[in-house]
Amino acid sequence: MSDVFTLGEVLGVISAERIRHDVTARLDLEGSELTVAVGLARLGHSVGFLGRVSDDEIGVRTLTVLRGEGIDVSHMRVDETASSGIVLRQRRIGRVAHAVNYRDGSAGSRLSTGDVPAGAIQSARILHVSGITPALSGFTWSAVHHAVKLAKDAGVLVSVDVNHRAYLWESVEEAREGLTELAASADILFANQDELGLVENAIGSLRELVVTRGSKGASATVDGFRYDTQAAPVTVVDPTEVGGAFVAGYLSALLDDSHPADRLKRGIALAAFAVASPSTWQGLPTREELPP
Amino acid sequence: MSDVFTLGEVLGVISAERIRHDVTARLDLEGSELTVAVGLARLGHSVGFLGRVSDDEIGVRTLTVLRGEGIDVSHMRVDETASSGIVLRQRRIGRVAHAVNYRDGSAGSRLSTGDVPAGAIQSARILHVSGITPALSGFTWSAVHHAVKLAKDAGVLVSVDVNHRAYLWESVEEAREGLTELAASADILFANQDELGLVENAIGSLRELVVTRGSKGASATVDGFRYDTQAAPVTVVDPTEVGGAFVAGYLSALLDDSHPADRLKRGIALAAFAVASPSTWQGLPTREELPP
Amino acid sequence: MSDVFTLGEVLGVISAERIRHDVTARLDLEGSELTVAVGLARLGHSVGFLGRVSDDEIGVRTLTVLRGEGIDVSHMRVDETASSGIVLRQRRIGRVAHAVNYRDGSAGSRLSTGDVPAGAIQSARILHVSGITPALSGFTWSAVHHAVKLAKDAGVLVSVDVNHRAYLWESVEEAREGLTELAASADILFANQDELGLVENAIGSLRELVVTRGSKGASATVDGFRYDTQAAPVTVVDPTEVGGAFVAGYLSALLDDSHPADRLKRGIALAAFAVASPSTWQGLPTREELPP
Amino acid sequence: MSDVFTLGEVLGVISAERIRHDVTARLDLEGSELTVAVGLARLGHSVGFLGRVSDDEIGVRTLTVLRGEGIDVSHMRVDETASSGIVLRQRRIGRVAHAVNYRDGSAGSRLSTGDVPAGAIQSARILHVSGITPALSGFTWSAVHHAVKLAKDAGVLVSVDVNHRAYLWESVEEAREGLTELAASADILFANQDELGLVENAIGSLRELVVTRGSKGASATVDGFRYDTQAAPVTVVDPTEVGGAFVAGYLSALLDDSHPADRLKRGIALAAFAVASPSTWQGLPTREELPP
Amino acid sequence: MSDVFTLGEVLGVISAERIRHDVTARLDLEGSELTVAVGLARLGHSVGFLGRVSDDEIGVRTLTVLRGEGIDVSHMRVDETASSGIVLRQRRIGRVAHAVNYRDGSAGSRLSTGDVPAGAIQSARILHVSGITPALSGFTWSAVHHAVKLAKDAGVLVSVDVNHRAYLWESVEEAREGLTELAASADILFANQDELGLVENAIGSLRELVVTRGSKGASATVDGFRYDTQAAPVTVVDPTEVGGAFVAGYLSALLDDSHPADRLKRGIALAAFAVASPSTWQGLPTREELPP
Amino acid sequence: MSDVFTLGEVLGVISAERIRHDVTARLDLEGSELTVAVGLARLGHSVGFLGRVSDDEIGVRTLTVLRGEGIDVSHMRVDETASSGIVLRQRRIGRVAHAVNYRDGSAGSRLSTGDVPAGAIQSARILHVSGITPALSGFTWSAVHHAVKLAKDAGVLVSVDVNHRAYLWESVEEAREGLTELAASADILFANQDELGLVENAIGSLRELVVTRGSKGASATVDGFRYDTQAAPVTVVDPTEVGGAFVAGYLSALLDDSHPADRLKRGIALAAFAVASPSTWQGLPTREELPP
Ligand SMILES: Nc1ncnc2c1ncn2[C@@H]1O[C@H](COP(=O)(O)OP(=O)(O)O)[C@@H](O)[C@H]1O
Ligand SMILES: Nc1ncnc2c1ncn2[C@@H]1O[C@H](COP(=O)(O)OP(=O)(O)O)[C@@H](O)[C@H]1O
Ligand SMILES: Nc1ncnc2c1ncn2[C@@H]1O[C@H](COP(=O)(O)OP(=O)(O)O)[C@@H](O)[C@H]1O
Ligand SMILES: Nc1ncnc2c1ncn2[C@@H]1O[C@H](COP(=O)(O)OP(=O)(O)O)[C@@H](O)[C@H]1O
Ligand SMILES: Nc1ncnc2c1ncn2[C@@H]1O[C@H](COP(=O)(O)OP(=O)(O)O)[C@@H](O)[C@H]1O
Ligand SMILES: Nc1ncnc2c1ncn2[C@@H]1O[C@H](COP(=O)(O)OP(=O)(O)O)[C@@H](O)[C@H]1O
Repeated sequence: MSDVFTLGEVLGVISAERIRHDVTARLDLEGSELTVAVGLARLGHSVGFLGRVSDDEIGVRTLTVLRGEGIDVSHMRVDETASSGIVLRQRRIGRVAHAVNYRDGSAGSRLSTGDVPAGAIQSARILHVSGITPALSGFTWSAVHHAVKLAKDAGVLVSVDVNHRAYLWESVEEAREGLTELAASADILFANQDELGLVENAIGSLRELVVTRGSKGASATVDGFRYDTQAAPVTVVDPTEVGGAFVAGYLSALLDDSHPADRLKRGIALAAFAVASPSTWQGLPTREELPP
Repeated sequence: MSDVFTLGEVLGVISAERIRHDVTARLDLEGSELTVAVGLARLGHSVGFLGRVSDDEIGVRTLTVLRGEGIDVSHMRVDETASSGIVLRQRRIGRVAHAVNYRDGSAGSRLSTGDVPAGAIQSARILHVSGITPALSGFTWSAVHHAVKLAKDAGVLVSVDVNHRAYLWESVEEAREGLTELAASADILFANQDELGLVENAIGSLRELVVTRGSKGASATVDGFRYDTQAAPVTVVDPTEVGGAFVAGYLSALLDDSHPADRLKRGIALAAFAVASPSTWQGLPTREELPP
Repeated sequence: MSDVFTLGEVLGVISAERIRHDVTARLDLEGSELTVAVGLARLGHSVGFLGRVSDDEIGVRTLTVLRGEGIDVSHMRVDETASSGIVLRQRRIGRVAHAVNYRDGSAGSRLSTGDVPAGAIQSARILHVSGITPALSGFTWSAVHHAVKLAKDAGVLVSVDVNHRAYLWESVEEAREGLTELAASADILFANQDELGLVENAIGSLRELVVTRGSKGASATVDGFRYDTQAAPVTVVDPTEVGGAFVAGYLSALLDDSHPADRLKRGIALAAFAVASPSTWQGLPTREELPP
Repeated sequence: MSDVFTLGEVLGVISAERIRHDVTARLDLEGSELTVAVGLARLGHSVGFLGRVSDDEIGVRTLTVLRGEGIDVSHMRVDETASSGIVLRQRRIGRVAHAVNYRDGSAGSRLSTGDVPAGAIQSARILHVSGITPALSGFTWSAVHHAVKLAKDAGVLVSVDVNHRAYLWESVEEAREGLTELAASADILFANQDELGLVENAIGSLRELVVTRGSKGASATVDGFRYDTQAAPVTVVDPTEVGGAFVAGYLSALLDDSHPADRLKRGIALAAFAVASPSTWQGLPTREELPP
Repeated sequence: MSDVFTLGEVLGVISAERIRHDVTARLDLEGSELTVAVGLARLGHSVGFLGRVSDDEIGVRTLTVLRGEGIDVSHMRVDETASSGIVLRQRRIGRVAHAVNYRDGSAGSRLSTGDVPAGAIQSARILHVSGITPALSGFTWSAVHHAVKLAKDAGVLVSVDVNHRAYLWESVEEAREGLTELAASADILFANQDELGLVENAIGSLRELVVTRGSKGASATVDGFRYDTQAAPVTVVDPTEVGGAFVAGYLSALLDDSHPADRLKRGIALAAFAVASPSTWQGLPTREELPP
Repeated sequence: MSDVFTLGEVLGVISAERIRHDVTARLDLEGSELTVAVGLARLGHSVGFLGRVSDDEIGVRTLTVLRGEGIDVSHMRVDETASSGIVLRQRRIGRVAHAVNYRDGSAGSRLSTGDVPAGAIQSARILHVSGITPALSGFTWSAVHHAVKLAKDAGVLVSVDVNHRAYLWESVEEAREGLTELAASADILFANQDELGLVENAIGSLRELVVTRGSKGASATVDGFRYDTQAAPVTVVDPTEVGGAFVAGYLSALLDDSHPADRLKRGIALAAFAVASPSTWQGLPTREELPP
């Protein structure tokens, strides 16, 4: 019985300034849903996480981090036949992104319908999924849609983050189709400005649409009313993969029954912590650390 | 027209003490044939290297390192459709090895027969291959055997390092068969003690067999005479993947027309430099740095 | 219902080579019972931990680590009125130990009888305590003795590690008296050679006495039979505070109903992992990593 | 016979980005009066420092740093019965300050009236004290007031930095009372904007009042005239504890008989160096490094 | 037959934040012409480099880096009688530059006329030299002028970067004279704003003059037309020694027969990469990384 | 009035594992007499140091370190016309030493007779000099011999450490002559085994001769009696430049009027601390840290 249930893949991430020259790299975990889960747990919400992890060191690290943050891992699966997905990421140099993903056939991409715990989803207040997970494999595609259906049938709020990752889709057309189908099942949809076009056909019918615009802030349209906010001024340490932090803040305020303007405000606040930290999740605040 | 021509895959390597906890890792390249090539080049021999690299940062790093060491890369291929193989390696803690390989479908595993430069091989004095490369894919299997055939036909000395990597073979039986076939074509065969059994059927006919025994040293049987030597006493920093250093030293002395005992001695010397360094290749000596 | 229940204080530890000069230090947690708990949990035993932590970052880190390792923290108390104990430790330089403790009035030292969960102790197979905890304060003195009484009354095995820390006692006489009283209630007593004299009056009646001798190994006397073992040969990284690792290994084998010689063997094995790591607990092995 | 005599406590400081996760920390010393003393000494003024230090590594480090900067330590006392105060400080993450102090009963807090060297104070041009020292203990309260009285009686200029540290006072009321009493004895008073209210009753009679406003600059009111200045534009590395740098710059210009506007200018300059450095004192400039 | 041939000295550089305190430093190479050469090579141009290097580790590192970047080193000379020039550089603290050069009598300063390869220069499209090299010694003075004469006679475009380094000249007058003589032989002259006055007598007759203004951008006057551009907004990591990056970008666009405005644009782009990296050359972009 | 007066050059030292590859280096000071001075000061002896330092950051660092250790620097000279000597040192890799010295014309090599303070020498108990200083320049040659003469005339004990540095002498013959002349004036002579031959002509007449043998220990011949000792078993971190530590220990015991066997013992003890530390001087012990 958690406030939020989420599912997805956690990746090992190795990051450096200039991979062709550097001799030391940062070793961490990342994952859009990991960030959402940690962000919510730090603010005192109960969170359940579903995913498959390898039985090697990165898999153990994933379980250790989730458990350490007080996230319910009782539904996690250890897959002894696959290794963890990892990503080699070059940071900010000249602001040219460079990331090589090794997640093909990863443990996380083998999450399947049979792994989805109906009870845990049906008893949650929110189910959160991203557009990354269904793009990983046929298994995960089915698993995500199964989870969403379980939630909808049980009246659980479905939160979807578009999270278009081009390298996971065969073509833009496939991505458009797949992401639109997912987005159409959302009660709340999170998209950044660049992704709006991809899911435009799903937007009409949405009750709550949240659009982020990087350093330019975010806006929400809830029941026909639109709210806007600036991003927090902050010394940027690493602005990649901060969308999950925003989502965590937004959903946290929603769980607190706060007003849409306050949901945006908390989303912005958590994103600022994420942007100011070399890790996507380690810098996330506790409730005491939130700005007043 | 190089002294030694070799071919193989260079991997990115990310190493740490305890991957589940560490936040910084060492970033480097490794590869048995890379070590052989660098070891020989540092001692003044001309070396040619053949392989496929990705067109991302690890691929560039590979070319940069090879070229930087003065190795001929004119036959290298850049493969724009595959990323580099990498390995996540846990060092020495409690001496329990832990390495996760991401090299399935890597650029290096796509090296194929068509990439093999006949002229470069036919004009070399030695062709060196390891038992790793043919195990990577059907492509590399054919490429290695094609290269060996070209060498044998041209009277070029064929040096083979058994290098059994269990995770690359379906079964021990397949490995035995594959490695024995390769070993049988060798003029000089390098094996460590544990690999001897696997290739026993190839050994009978060999003119020059070199067996390494980790910290216990090495021996060579040349034209029926056997020579033995101790390992050098050395502060061990990282004893993994040092076989290539030994091979480089041995072949260097062979190229200098030294006596088998001196070949062993130089093999031991280079291995000591490798064992004493956190990198498999950066610590390798120049000729001036060799013990007298 | 855990296999082992333990209680004690976890300290923040800041360690450097030469504190008067160094500008970077290692930041970690330590604690004899923390090591015991992590060691057992990694080997698959269920473990419960009781202690008070501060509500600041070190307190959060303590909970995060314990939870992350899968240890039951449901009985932990957060004390908002005290900060965490910490220790400033100088490593190995010239082998002159130097440690300054800041644990007076710490959160951990405020653990009291009322915090002790009777049910959790009564349903455990083993209660493990060390001679550090009762020396922290009057509160902890009572809490430990209360816990031991609960265990003995319920037929739960009581494991005691002498762990004499001179700076925690007013005088050697007080230490002797206090530690002897605690030792006398043990079913299994762990002491290092130097501590034997202090608790000699408690030893006569013991069913199981285990004595460690640093790099010289350890022995156990069980039901009148004595067993001896050598320490594992290992590259020493940090030999301080490894006693807890030994205890974890020994108790793990006991829980597996292994023979005393195998208990010693597993104790030695875990201590070797601890000695080879800069952290007292991070290097501890999983069951797969144990030597055969 | 020094230009400036000051007294106070030097703390060991361990700082990290996120204490709950980081495994390396910065090890340094800090202290408002330490910064003042180093700032002045680097600009060529003679400075005497009085304080008690422990006889452990942090105490030795304190003496080494002070002596190394050419500060007169002949009146320093080594206290063998107490350890050094230390502070665990979390830097800038999301700009939420987090500092845990371990200075209760520290060596520095045991400085007492008997330690105060009358001659050294009477022969100085300026005595500088902060509102931190009297708040440490009854001993230091008396010592500071004794020193101030000696100075006033001898016609030595008394400089006071309010430096309100809430955690050192029982209540705001106590702080107001104690700091006002100290401020009332000042010839020059330094306060930041937030502290002005606390000492408002002391301000009326002051000849020279200097108010800092963080990144917004500072102003001085001298003999009824008010001077204002902007802060220097600077890449902020660590803006905590930079007040002492400002004071050093201001007093240095005063000692040079510069105009109030130039005192402010030099205060701003030194603060900029402090803000741009990870250390409060290591980045302070020499006279050649001052902007023209 | 390279697009650009250049000659100069490569220095070892040891850099730290505050040399009087820091215990770790960055170890790298630097050199205005090194940066030009790497910048051009990364963009796909063929580049030849001429210089003398020591036969020690810094000399080997120089050859390794040049070769690694695919720069033609076939004309490089190894000088066994001199060590490499090095520079001890303090970074950005309070923005007070501090650099101590050890290049007197260095290997690089012994480059002489006899080393200059006529053919390589005559077959290049551009010869690039800086005002640093002729100031190193009588040898290098002659070598540079000899190279320039060879180029001019062969109709090879001569590019000159003023690069006034005051510490290399006896007096401003000598510098003015020497640099003007060199500048007068340029087809394209690069100068920063502060250097314009020094070479004013050479400017009148120039076909192409490029003036950089640090963070304020740059301008070019080509055949009487003037073009201006802003600097790229970028997080500054180290703004020293970025002039060479600008030159590389500018010359690259020239080689591509781009319009002067596009030459400036590419110069600005490469300078931005250099400014954003701790190394002058490692951060330089490939063609794919260039902004569109 | 110091127990020991010494003079010499302090060098900046930049050390790395493999200079051709490493990107971080250790930054420190070194110098045989620096080590002697720090070693003695830590053991409570009063020490005076004479030398010239540059007015740049390394010069300031030298004064800061000497002063910080409580060494009398009142006779030090700041030379504004020369920079500090530095050395680029490669550590232990494959145990092939590699050091490049930049000390030609350094501030330290400009120490001259006029700088030598007669009174400070005449009132010391011991004058300690090494064979490095006179080899630096004509100035230092005269300065050292002047100092020695002052000492001998005043009955001050003259301690000489041979310290043959081949690169500082034109030829072995010159070194032999120069070092023998210096050695002949010694009351106590320190030499390592390899240097004995060079100074054999000076040995006959010596009252006290101390010979070190690296890891094999040391011996002393005092008034015709010979004493021998083993080196301490110690984990070697950096065994270069430890001779000064031995001298400090030996002279300390001499100042305490200890027996020759105890002088050796203390020399061995200090050398062990030096060998176990990455710095030649930072690891040196206080009196409390000495083995009993
Ligand atoms: N450079 C930045 N500065 C400040 N806040 C930022 C910055 N980049 C992102 N953010 C914050 O993160 C939120 C999400 O960022 P965005 O880039 O739109 O998401 P995504 O990573 O999902 O594409 C923004 O709404 C903003 O609050
Ligand atoms: N621990 C060690 N100490 C010293 N030398 C070693 C050590 N391990 C390996 N070597 C050297 O490396 C050589 C090859 O090592 P080995 O482990 O047999 O090869 P491989 O890595 O191919 O299995 C040995 O012959 C020896 O010279
Ligand atoms: N230097 C060492 N080398 C190998 N093992 C060690 C070393 N020091 C301790 N150990 C292992 O740790 C165990 C406990 O060490 P000991 O020092 O006796 O305990 P404690 O830390 O409780 O005083 C020993 O029995 C041994 O197995
Ligand atoms: N963020 C900043 N940027 C630039 N200068 C600053 C900044 N913060 C502080 N300073 C400088 O330090 C001075 C003192 O800072 P302030 O925060 O007022 O003092 P305190 O640390 O004593 O509270 C300011 O007047 C200003 O010159
Ligand atoms: N602080 C800065 N911010 C952005 N770009 C800069 C900065 N400093 C230099 N640059 C870029 O580098 C180019 C050359 O810088 P400049 O300082 O004029 O050259 P030099 O290093 O040769 O003196 C500038 O034209 C600009 O594009
Ligand atoms: N590898 C080592 N292990 C232990 N002690 C050593 C080692 N090397 C040197 N020492 C100690 O340092 C002393 C001086 O060393 P030595 O190498 O003879 O001097 P130097 O550096 O002046 O040549 C020796 O007598 C010994 O006590």
